[in-house]
Amino acid sequence: MAAGYITDPAEIYRQSFATIRAEAELSRFDTATANIVVRMIHACGMTDLAGDIVVSEEFAAAGQAALVKGGAVICDVEMVRHGIIGRLLPAENAVLCALSDPRVAERARLAGTTRSAAQVELWDAQLEGAVVVIGNAPTALFRLLERIDEGAPMPAAIIGAPVGFVGAVESKDALIANPRGVPFIAVRGRRGGSAIAAAALNALAAGLEGHG
Amino acid sequence: MAAGYITDPAEIYRQSFATIRAEAELSRFDTATANIVVRMIHACGMTDLAGDIVVSEEFAAAGQAALVKGGAVICDVEMVRHGIIGRLLPAENAVLCALSDPRVAERARLAGTTRSAAQVELWDAQLEGAVVVIGNAPTALFRLLERIDEGAPMPAAIIGAPVGFVGAVESKDALIANPRGVPFIAVRGRRGGSAIAAAALNALAAGLEGHG
Repeated sequence: MAAGYITDPAEIYRQSFATIRAEAELSRFDTATANIVVRMIHACGMTDLAGDIVVSEEFAAAGQAALVKGGAVICDVEMVRHGIIGRLLPAENAVLCALSDPRVAERARLAGTTRSAAQVELWDAQLEGAVVVIGNAPTALFRLLERIDEGAPMPAAIIGAPVGFVGAVESKDALIANPRGVPFIAVRGRRGGSAIAAAALNALAAGLEGHG
Repeated sequence: MAAGYITDPAEIYRQSFATIRAEAELSRFDTATANIVVRMIHACGMTDLAGDIVVSEEFAAAGQAALVKGGAVICDVEMVRHGIIGRLLPAENAVLCALSDPRVAERARLAGTTRSAAQVELWDAQLEGAVVVIGNAPTALFRLLERIDEGAPMPAAIIGAPVGFVGAVESKDALIANPRGVPFIAVRGRRGGSAIAAAALNALAAGLEGHG
């Protein structure tokens, strides 16, 4: 059919990635990290996001190794969980979100905190060697850092992209200032979101398959 | 607990919305529309999004009436579907996404198009009086406009917020230039995404309950 617009999925990806690589300032990243940043930009339509990325040198390798070893992918919200492309995962990795766990609402009420933060204590059994993907809630990222300080199991990597006007900047600055030895990627500032966070995880998995 | 960050969910919302209203240029919107734009900004962390919003005068009323009448909420991707806050919906409205329908992949292959576009033909039975929420795929928005031109049932309102580098700008410009009589809200330009799109729908529903 002559649609008057591009309909071929492979061509849409090709042109999208070519535009991003032409416009975004990626020179400070190594190849594996640049591939991740390209997909994060692809998810939000903003090439200047590259300037707000802060990333550990070892993030790409650590995140990919965690996935290959079968580490869980722990998401702060269902939107992130549903943005993960399951077929890219190398080890049928569990993709989890505890926000709707029936224990969470009551725990949040008792602690005077958000459900997003209250769920973090329920991550412990899967946290060792997991990749944590935070795309919505600053309080989840703050609470994760507290839990690590309290002796919780250590995740293999953190994708820190909570979004918004209260705590988003501060929670990511806290991660960047002291990542507790955990390799991470973060989007500095108010921007972030489920799509950007999920894209970073998908990029780790896609890199393993040579999808770039 | 003295967390060193704000943990009260109501206070987080209050401060977030106050910051958005202080920073964003909302004066060209009526009250109901401004409430929607505030929630779209809340979802992405960018107050300048207001400048890219194009909206029909009748969008808020038409979208809310559709929800009250029990119209379906049709989403282009699962991330949008999982961003819809079900408890806000006034009539136990169906929240649908056909992307994973087993018929879609084969239809897309045969038509040489994306799965996002191929799913649109499966919307027909729910399309009359529905609110369509497009937060990812330009080809879904293009195809919806084609389907309306071909005589498909008329949705009650369209939320047009596909994102990215190939077709996002053009599909939204096509909607804005000729909305086929359907009330709409769109984010002009490359920006958009599941969170912004879902937030617009949630704002319609929240407005009904007086949550603002």
